[in-house]
Amino acid sequence: MSGSTFGTLFRVTNFGESHGPAIGCVIDGCPPGMKLSEADIQPDLDRRRPGTSRHVTQRNEPDAVEILSGVYEGVTTGTPICLLIRNTDQRSKDYGNILQTFRPGHADYTYWHKYGVRDPRGGGRSSARLTAPMVAAGAVAKKWLREKHGTTFDGHMVQIGEIEIPFESMDHVPNNPFFAANATDIPRLEAYMDELRKAGDSCGARIAVAARHVPVGWGAPLFDKLDADIAYAMMGINAVKGVEIGAGFASVAQRGTTHGDSLTPSGFAGNNAGGVLGGISTGQDVTVQIAIKPTSSIRSSRESIDLAGAPATVETFGRHDPCVGIRATPIAEAMLALVLIDHALQHRAQCGDVHVAVPPIAAGQGSIG
Amino acid sequence: MSGSTFGTLFRVTNFGESHGPAIGCVIDGCPPGMKLSEADIQPDLDRRRPGTSRHVTQRNEPDAVEILSGVYEGVTTGTPICLLIRNTDQRSKDYGNILQTFRPGHADYTYWHKYGVRDPRGGGRSSARLTAPMVAAGAVAKKWLREKHGTTFDGHMVQIGEIEIPFESMDHVPNNPFFAANATDIPRLEAYMDELRKAGDSCGARIAVAARHVPVGWGAPLFDKLDADIAYAMMGINAVKGVEIGAGFASVAQRGTTHGDSLTPSGFAGNNAGGVLGGISTGQDVTVQIAIKPTSSIRSSRESIDLAGAPATVETFGRHDPCVGIRATPIAEAMLALVLIDHALQHRAQCGDVHVAVPPIAAGQGSIG
Amino acid sequence: MSGSTFGTLFRVTNFGESHGPAIGCVIDGCPPGMKLSEADIQPDLDRRRPGTSRHVTQRNEPDAVEILSGVYEGVTTGTPICLLIRNTDQRSKDYGNILQTFRPGHADYTYWHKYGVRDPRGGGRSSARLTAPMVAAGAVAKKWLREKHGTTFDGHMVQIGEIEIPFESMDHVPNNPFFAANATDIPRLEAYMDELRKAGDSCGARIAVAARHVPVGWGAPLFDKLDADIAYAMMGINAVKGVEIGAGFASVAQRGTTHGDSLTPSGFAGNNAGGVLGGISTGQDVTVQIAIKPTSSIRSSRESIDLAGAPATVETFGRHDPCVGIRATPIAEAMLALVLIDHALQHRAQCGDVHVAVPPIAAGQGSIG
Amino acid sequence: MSGSTFGTLFRVTNFGESHGPAIGCVIDGCPPGMKLSEADIQPDLDRRRPGTSRHVTQRNEPDAVEILSGVYEGVTTGTPICLLIRNTDQRSKDYGNILQTFRPGHADYTYWHKYGVRDPRGGGRSSARLTAPMVAAGAVAKKWLREKHGTTFDGHMVQIGEIEIPFESMDHVPNNPFFAANATDIPRLEAYMDELRKAGDSCGARIAVAARHVPVGWGAPLFDKLDADIAYAMMGINAVKGVEIGAGFASVAQRGTTHGDSLTPSGFAGNNAGGVLGGISTGQDVTVQIAIKPTSSIRSSRESIDLAGAPATVETFGRHDPCVGIRATPIAEAMLALVLIDHALQHRAQCGDVHVAVPPIAAGQGSIG
Repeated sequence: MSGSTFGTLFRVTNFGESHGPAIGCVIDGCPPGMKLSEADIQPDLDRRRPGTSRHVTQRNEPDAVEILSGVYEGVTTGTPICLLIRNTDQRSKDYGNILQTFRPGHADYTYWHKYGVRDPRGGGRSSARLTAPMVAAGAVAKKWLREKHGTTFDGHMVQIGEIEIPFESMDHVPNNPFFAANATDIPRLEAYMDELRKAGDSCGARIAVAARHVPVGWGAPLFDKLDADIAYAMMGINAVKGVEIGAGFASVAQRGTTHGDSLTPSGFAGNNAGGVLGGISTGQDVTVQIAIKPTSSIRSSRESIDLAGAPATVETFGRHDPCVGIRATPIAEAMLALVLIDHALQHRAQCGDVHVAVPPIAAGQGSIG
Repeated sequence: MSGSTFGTLFRVTNFGESHGPAIGCVIDGCPPGMKLSEADIQPDLDRRRPGTSRHVTQRNEPDAVEILSGVYEGVTTGTPICLLIRNTDQRSKDYGNILQTFRPGHADYTYWHKYGVRDPRGGGRSSARLTAPMVAAGAVAKKWLREKHGTTFDGHMVQIGEIEIPFESMDHVPNNPFFAANATDIPRLEAYMDELRKAGDSCGARIAVAARHVPVGWGAPLFDKLDADIAYAMMGINAVKGVEIGAGFASVAQRGTTHGDSLTPSGFAGNNAGGVLGGISTGQDVTVQIAIKPTSSIRSSRESIDLAGAPATVETFGRHDPCVGIRATPIAEAMLALVLIDHALQHRAQCGDVHVAVPPIAAGQGSIG
Repeated sequence: MSGSTFGTLFRVTNFGESHGPAIGCVIDGCPPGMKLSEADIQPDLDRRRPGTSRHVTQRNEPDAVEILSGVYEGVTTGTPICLLIRNTDQRSKDYGNILQTFRPGHADYTYWHKYGVRDPRGGGRSSARLTAPMVAAGAVAKKWLREKHGTTFDGHMVQIGEIEIPFESMDHVPNNPFFAANATDIPRLEAYMDELRKAGDSCGARIAVAARHVPVGWGAPLFDKLDADIAYAMMGINAVKGVEIGAGFASVAQRGTTHGDSLTPSGFAGNNAGGVLGGISTGQDVTVQIAIKPTSSIRSSRESIDLAGAPATVETFGRHDPCVGIRATPIAEAMLALVLIDHALQHRAQCGDVHVAVPPIAAGQGSIG
Repeated sequence: MSGSTFGTLFRVTNFGESHGPAIGCVIDGCPPGMKLSEADIQPDLDRRRPGTSRHVTQRNEPDAVEILSGVYEGVTTGTPICLLIRNTDQRSKDYGNILQTFRPGHADYTYWHKYGVRDPRGGGRSSARLTAPMVAAGAVAKKWLREKHGTTFDGHMVQIGEIEIPFESMDHVPNNPFFAANATDIPRLEAYMDELRKAGDSCGARIAVAARHVPVGWGAPLFDKLDADIAYAMMGINAVKGVEIGAGFASVAQRGTTHGDSLTPSGFAGNNAGGVLGGISTGQDVTVQIAIKPTSSIRSSRESIDLAGAPATVETFGRHDPCVGIRATPIAEAMLALVLIDHALQHRAQCGDVHVAVPPIAAGQGSIG
């Protein structure tokens, strides 16, 4: 309702602001009996954290997660898990002048008009920093899904600004600062980002994310469709302006004879569906792509207005990502995991634990993007 | 949760199947004191109903809505409004053979595996016919939004199959069977559809929809972002595979200096944001585009499997839309209206009825698509 | 939120008014694969329906239920079940004068001030008639609970007005118009009611209801405690002013050494807990009592005010129950069943289908009231 | 769902265990623009905290609250308010032996069977210590209700064990350790408690709580009735076994001519309704009473079983309240405030900010208990 709780059965309530004392979340509804420690969560946070390359914000935060509740002797008890991440590199003075004007493309304007008050320090509640607790919660979801159903997640960047990134291998993703499934083009991407940063400008990105080994039957018919919930989750990530499932916008120009994935005794012959038919998982890979807009906090001077409505120019100093899409891959994975665990629990609520036996799914049928 | 209730404060619970005795919905949370009769709802249903041209299903249904509750002497009482639409042209025998196989690209497969049982008559619950009650509920939402806030809605088709439809004027939209904002190209579109139908095939479509005169401040920061809820609503429409807000996927290749809409004393200078910043409405037009996949029920023979997993071919007879996108425009408008009324109510719950005075918004700044 | 949906996973959305064309509900989240027909539902409706004795309202309604959706070939499909009950004995003129004044103890006053409009025909939405759809939905819940877990429900009246009704045997409950577990005192109760009716007055009642064969482990720790949800459900029944679980208010004067039910290898030695500890079912009978106030619509003249706030006297003619508690037993059973099925589904969502083996529960340990 | 979030529009998500590092809550949906600091919250926590007299647990905790988010420069921003209370006097060893057996009347048994794992330290999640964050959240709710609507809250103990406490004056409530509205009988109550403690036993209590200056019109017709939500809130407090509104169980023996509160031009003539008719507030005082069972953790030896189901005796050492009801008054006030603020927000969501003018309410008509 008020925007800070995600999910219905595996519920994550997020709190905090970019420059307050701490951010975090409370997970309610986690199944009991799962081994869990900070070490299960920290790696995903480390993939998202700032300061890991010159292409992201230079804010220096360890983003160390602390489990405050819900785990006893290393095992989840079924009661709420509070995850706390302390803010350690706040510099509120960087943001003092922002309070008098509105950054074009930024939530400054809307928060001010909605609430009549806003926390300007690092964007307050509108900061992408608030995705960190979701990455932490997503790590818990991923662990349960992997242990219970063998489900895994991966994501990679497919485009940055004008540059489409050729797919080479998922093995490259951890080895470059862009989460690109590519080794050859990395120097070109770095040069592009260096130039952009020098120009005081920013760019967008397109990210692909997939869940693999998803059982058939997760989702619901009308409004809580698996793909609808995925769209909701992805569009809720800061700066996302578009979401597509499977063939997505390309399906507009497809014919029915092409788009509909044929079924064979060894599985589906294609995955235009992106692993979802009628709002329910097919057993194929669930494949999603998202469009991320360019960062609104840029150094270049912009035309704007002040609180009184008079013309003003805005330049944003402080520490900002020139492409928020660079760190979006682990976030998108986490949000996808949070949607899936919720539907896993919803499914067994209504239909029980036993999954109907299904025809085998053809190996390798569901490729990303 | 189980997928049949949409919204949190203006809640619409949908029920029925394509070939059952009736479909309908219950609206809970409608503000009291609004004049309402069937005549306020029927026009939108008529825009969506089947049988209006040769390019849509030939099922012949008046889709006449009946108000069963919640209105006393022509005025909403604040109690639940039940809207009933009787099914009058069911032909269950058309669908008998469907029960033994799975149509490629159809929910047959997933319903069967999720529930272990399914209603095959016209797709049962997975039929796009279930959007009719949402169009009816949307008409109630539109009326309140128009009377209370002056908000209006319009939509049009921007692409059908491979053909992009040039924008000429919104005045054309009611005058052709495609909801196209165009007069010149209609014969070409009709020829395209005739050929497709003859080939027993289907195609996709892209629809643009907008809400105009939306106050600033509707939405919520993190998860119940206005655009996230819009994405959820749109992706919940049958056959939708992609959603974008404002510049959408095009924002990937934009620079921050271009994408961020400048503010001027007379309003925003552009609308790449699509009327939403930080999940909260800006006061500009809210602009959305959706991608609709080709209909999965086609006459052409397709490769599939039967319930035992053995190879089978499937041909779908009966009455189907060759392009479900053709009737999607009023549906998309309705879903957008349902999202907005919910956020209107949420906003006044938290922040009260008084909206902060805002700088005037430049006329005509927010054009669709 | 707006009060017409009950439950979270087995969700019942209620609609209609006392004198509108129909009342009914939509059940969303019912497990698939259960045989269901009107014949499973009608018997409970018949227990609640008006006109069955001279001690209840003489409104003559068959309260025949019709399944509009969610069942295919006699089996639940997992999609929403719409249950419709047509109103057939409306007499709107009986209520015309009520619109100008407020009945003491009635919702007239609050509806008017909340909504600024109200449907005065038979109390509109505030009529106890709206419990009929809940009895229907409860019959569906009872069937699933019985078939899946062996859970059964029974209730009986323990006090009417000043008269406490001695417990003789549950076998007597269906054989008298009061749902009394008693045969001896029935003539006395009938005489009491006849006198009350003659006096144009009304009285309260106390009802006991129990669920038997409830598995251990249903419920949740903090706010969605099983007993909290029961209290919510019971206090939501028209005219209920008090709810107690197990020893209830008597536990105030108990000592800890007495109240805490000892555990033995053959089960609990008592049931002061009423089958709930820490908000979670113990495996014992869940026992509840409710207090029902006297009917507010009475023939005796009462002091009140009119819409302008001026003094007025009110006498209510038309057809009313002199003790709404008489028909409350099947309603309380239904509401208890609705709470339990929801927690059954919640439990298997979080903890899976397999219940932990528990020590045997001593036979007959949990007696009602 | 999973029990840790209370409320729909003013949502409080509670986390923590009795002996973990911290407990706390996240409030989502608080209206923006209200001044708020720890000093507004601490006094209510101090009323509830342990160690304030010899009649409550000797656990020594300051229960100091810390605002982690949602407040900027002393003003609520409309974003989630995280309140943290660190546990500072955990003694986990006190509880070591509890893990092998089940205390009669305690949640030990049900947690173990529900989750297959439990945190035995101080009752873990089932400890009444988890009411502290609700008292903190309630203080925020109280402040808003007082500033916006003039609504105030008070409560007092009306019975402890077998002793009914004569009402003398609400002025006495802060001046004795029992929250009794009485000065004369305090020595008798203290002697009673001393004897009980010496006997290693415990007793129950009955608490009355009221909200005053509640506007007419808060609540909803069917399931989210104001009184139903109050019953839910109260029964969710640890050890509560019964709830009644207004005349409560006494209304069973009342006649309609007596029970229904007459309306006069100067207000209602009585308050048997407890300030709620048809689930909606009348403008009178909302009056509630709750029954609290005797503490289950007592020093006296009890018959029980161990994990294997074999007979065992249980004695509970460590620090426990001999009457949990003693500290229940501020908790009940807080829960009542949380219900009311939610309905205040729900009301203005549906009906707007403007309240209909109502006839004046007679002064002093609504007295507690």
